Amino acid sequence: MCRWLAYFGDPVRMDEVLYGPQHSLIEQSLSSRLGAEPTNGDGFGVGWYGPDGPAVFKSIEPAWNDRNLREIASHVSSHLFLAHIRATSGTPVQQTNCHPFRHGRWLWAHNGVVHDWAHLKRDVQMAVDPSLYPLIEGSTDSEALFFLALTLGLEDDPAAAVARTIGMVEDLGAARGIRFPFQGTIATTDGERLWGFRYSSEGRSRSLFYTSRYDTLQALYPDDPRIARFGEDTRIVVSEPLGDLPGVWNEVPEASYGIVGQGQGELHPFVPVRGAVAV
Amino acid sequence: MCRWLAYFGDPVRMDEVLYGPQHSLIEQSLSSRLGAEPTNGDGFGVGWYGPDGPAVFKSIEPAWNDRNLREIASHVSSHLFLAHIRATSGTPVQQTNCHPFRHGRWLWAHNGVVHDWAHLKRDVQMAVDPSLYPLIEGSTDSEALFFLALTLGLEDDPAAAVARTIGMVEDLGAARGIRFPFQGTIATTDGERLWGFRYSSEGRSRSLFYTSRYDTLQALYPDDPRIARFGEDTRIVVSEPLGDLPGVWNEVPEASYGIVGQGQGELHPFVPVRGAVAV
Amino acid sequence: MCRWLAYFGDPVRMDEVLYGPQHSLIEQSLSSRLGAEPTNGDGFGVGWYGPDGPAVFKSIEPAWNDRNLREIASHVSSHLFLAHIRATSGTPVQQTNCHPFRHGRWLWAHNGVVHDWAHLKRDVQMAVDPSLYPLIEGSTDSEALFFLALTLGLEDDPAAAVARTIGMVEDLGAARGIRFPFQGTIATTDGERLWGFRYSSEGRSRSLFYTSRYDTLQALYPDDPRIARFGEDTRIVVSEPLGDLPGVWNEVPEASYGIVGQGQGELHPFVPVRGAVAV
Amino acid sequence: MCRWLAYFGDPVRMDEVLYGPQHSLIEQSLSSRLGAEPTNGDGFGVGWYGPDGPAVFKSIEPAWNDRNLREIASHVSSHLFLAHIRATSGTPVQQTNCHPFRHGRWLWAHNGVVHDWAHLKRDVQMAVDPSLYPLIEGSTDSEALFFLALTLGLEDDPAAAVARTIGMVEDLGAARGIRFPFQGTIATTDGERLWGFRYSSEGRSRSLFYTSRYDTLQALYPDDPRIARFGEDTRIVVSEPLGDLPGVWNEVPEASYGIVGQGQGELHPFVPVRGAVAV
Repeated sequence: MCRWLAYFGDPVRMDEVLYGPQHSLIEQSLSSRLGAEPTNGDGFGVGWYGPDGPAVFKSIEPAWNDRNLREIASHVSSHLFLAHIRATSGTPVQQTNCHPFRHGRWLWAHNGVVHDWAHLKRDVQMAVDPSLYPLIEGSTDSEALFFLALTLGLEDDPAAAVARTIGMVEDLGAARGIRFPFQGTIATTDGERLWGFRYSSEGRSRSLFYTSRYDTLQALYPDDPRIARFGEDTRIVVSEPLGDLPGVWNEVPEASYGIVGQGQGELHPFVPVRGAVAV
Repeated sequence: MCRWLAYFGDPVRMDEVLYGPQHSLIEQSLSSRLGAEPTNGDGFGVGWYGPDGPAVFKSIEPAWNDRNLREIASHVSSHLFLAHIRATSGTPVQQTNCHPFRHGRWLWAHNGVVHDWAHLKRDVQMAVDPSLYPLIEGSTDSEALFFLALTLGLEDDPAAAVARTIGMVEDLGAARGIRFPFQGTIATTDGERLWGFRYSSEGRSRSLFYTSRYDTLQALYPDDPRIARFGEDTRIVVSEPLGDLPGVWNEVPEASYGIVGQGQGELHPFVPVRGAVAV
Repeated sequence: MCRWLAYFGDPVRMDEVLYGPQHSLIEQSLSSRLGAEPTNGDGFGVGWYGPDGPAVFKSIEPAWNDRNLREIASHVSSHLFLAHIRATSGTPVQQTNCHPFRHGRWLWAHNGVVHDWAHLKRDVQMAVDPSLYPLIEGSTDSEALFFLALTLGLEDDPAAAVARTIGMVEDLGAARGIRFPFQGTIATTDGERLWGFRYSSEGRSRSLFYTSRYDTLQALYPDDPRIARFGEDTRIVVSEPLGDLPGVWNEVPEASYGIVGQGQGELHPFVPVRGAVAV
Repeated sequence: MCRWLAYFGDPVRMDEVLYGPQHSLIEQSLSSRLGAEPTNGDGFGVGWYGPDGPAVFKSIEPAWNDRNLREIASHVSSHLFLAHIRATSGTPVQQTNCHPFRHGRWLWAHNGVVHDWAHLKRDVQMAVDPSLYPLIEGSTDSEALFFLALTLGLEDDPAAAVARTIGMVEDLGAARGIRFPFQGTIATTDGERLWGFRYSSEGRSRSLFYTSRYDTLQALYPDDPRIARFGEDTRIVVSEPLGDLPGVWNEVPEASYGIVGQGQGELHPFVPVRGAVAV
């Protein structure tokens, strides 16, 4: 059910992070270890921030052999990018169903599923603000969640908006007898800060990790050239670790979210806001 | 804005009709004469009826160079098939936005547009029966119309259902200040009969033609081998003529619809049913 | 490095064989057990014989989620078809590099590799008859082998031609210091009979299996409806078994080839013909 | 039969040149005016130079609706880029048959055809240096010409190498009774200078234009903001003009070639070098 990677930090050529590591995201498209399935070959996408805002390159081709992805990654540097490899949970394989999704300066990616999406889809899409509704281009739960979050204030307070979004999905799900409506991890960013969420209604969420603080890494591996590339604010938030170096990868706890930004790296509990919807 | 072709009659190998004629549908994908645009290269689809119900083959590739389409067409015979070449009116180029659309035994294709679709989309999709709503896979006006027609009784009385559908779209459009909501021709079939509609709110509809009756063709061209292939009930209904032979192609009048079937070939006026929706 | 399946027997709807079994070829595209890699997502192809000769449907999309493949397979019956799922050994992912390859009435598929293909490619392609050379459309070793086999008499005596082909490849390889030039299994057919080869220069070939004789299967499983579908001449030759039923699947021995046809099911040793090329 | 565009000058965001103009290259993919065909929808490619050498983004999708192309173009700036839209002259539509082709620091694009390519292909490919032969990935005449030019010294003296290449093609063509072997315009660059060739054996070559010198443009249009963007060395070499402003576009004469570089803008006669091949 997908894997994603978010990078925040000093500008870096994207292929260093996307292709370079031992167990890179590209390698995970062929065989992930911690995902719901080993293969994530139903498309990919990468969004990166530059002087002209977020650019998004998406395709239905499996990431592992896509030449254009390698080309773009090898010739584009960015201080913040979000990449995603897809394993569909049922919706069609098409470019508009690849992540990340974009709205204005915001990007959004999701690993997981809204259970029984066929029955919840109408309810969720109807809760999206009518002015945003026409912007929904695909048929995934992930994209619908994004537009619901935008409706509920993502651009003003992302953490609160996502809490309201998941809460509403759980309310709507409860009304239809769906036991565990929401599953997954979410990444969203405005190009300046990055939010990563790990939560599931059933309490056993898709995996999510983040890299240790700069000073921790420097102390652990003072001579490692790869660690030396890390700047002071650099963080990688990723579905599964890109390598095995001890002390580099930390699991995001169940039911929590993190914020990464300049001079900022925080972890907080995540609690969906229930009861906003009369069901 | 697309072109389509429907064949009903004696079983024929599909490439004879799709590739054979002088101004074939495939040639129209590269340069149509009567369409809104000359190029219809945003995908294609063909649905055909066999012993296992309707099969649908769709792709985003331009029809003119697609090898798989030529292969399928050259090795499949059918008594009834519906082919469509797409020129998008704004929605993404993806397989789920290619026609024909299918539900059960029914196929549906459309050449035209719902004007200001971005503003009408939510209204129209909300009018679709909740049980059918999850089956909407793409983002086109054409597909939404199909599911609205299914909601309004397509499987029981196609002509009445389409009249109610267009009527509802016109009501919803009027409520949003859209002057001429509906434009186009529609083909729909259940594998036994074929309905073709030509109507637009503004009264200047996309082109639509049908072949003359068998006895007419035989009388006009007793020695033409292509005409000899035509069986007694054979009809081709098509956006623009496949050739220039006088007497073969007849224009479907504005605001009318036809029914083709075994021993049946009728033309009737088409009037949308207004006022069913309180707006 | 790919998996393939060939069916010969009573006409059957292709999806029964391609999608139906427990460990179907489609499932093997996502996770094969005996292949060089578990994932075979670099494209697929299926060729089937009908009244108009062999049709071929090929695409670069992974087989597991391809809707068109499911559609075609669900609506086409044939007495003889050859399907292939690809894991590239280095050449680009493109339709012309998908198997099966076709020439006249002949189809050809290969699971394996010509080692150090970059260095042998020119030699092999130069050995192809100049009249056939322009028909090479892709860049795979597999396709080049096909055209070399055609040059060396495939249409007259397939077993001898393949023996000469592999022998020539081994001679050319030896001249360039390549220790084990050829690896793999090959399927080829003219629509009436089917040849399956299992051989490698190093003596450890890709896996290949065939189904037991009709009377054996009937005796083993007199009540199994799937076995009942098998006709007297039915054989499935396949890279890896489609299921676990004991007694159904037999390994093709190293360095041997089989011929399947009406009233014919034989196994013979396979020995490449060396020394035909002065190197 | 294709159209191409090459930009050399001050760094510019690529979409300004690829999408901005009135009759942009993207618009030409849908309806070119001076090309052999109006539609160039068989794929596209763009190569651009950055700090890490030339990047190439190619796809089989028609350029007019490709979102990724718009994204890349809108977020990448370069001082030198080469874009191409394809109308196949018979070879398959696949990524490896899209231009520009790349080798080391060199890019190459071609609008035209080698007549009777099926019969000349083997001869031309055999003339390619064996060390370069394995690098030929597609099946086009255009790509083969590139590798033949590399064989004949493109990296040392492009103009001479192309003259030898076309000369050899004409010799090989004469040997096979092909009256007018070569047709077309060629663009090639090493990231520092750009060469554009216009020649055909029959003397009626595909169209090619270049922009006037900086001082000429400034004098003609001192207030035009688009002209103001032009730097002193800026040149656009293109198959057909991007707009109608008088004095901006100059036709490259028949049988000539141009060199564009820093402080350099020259035009020279082009004469193929014949007789190097014993035929």
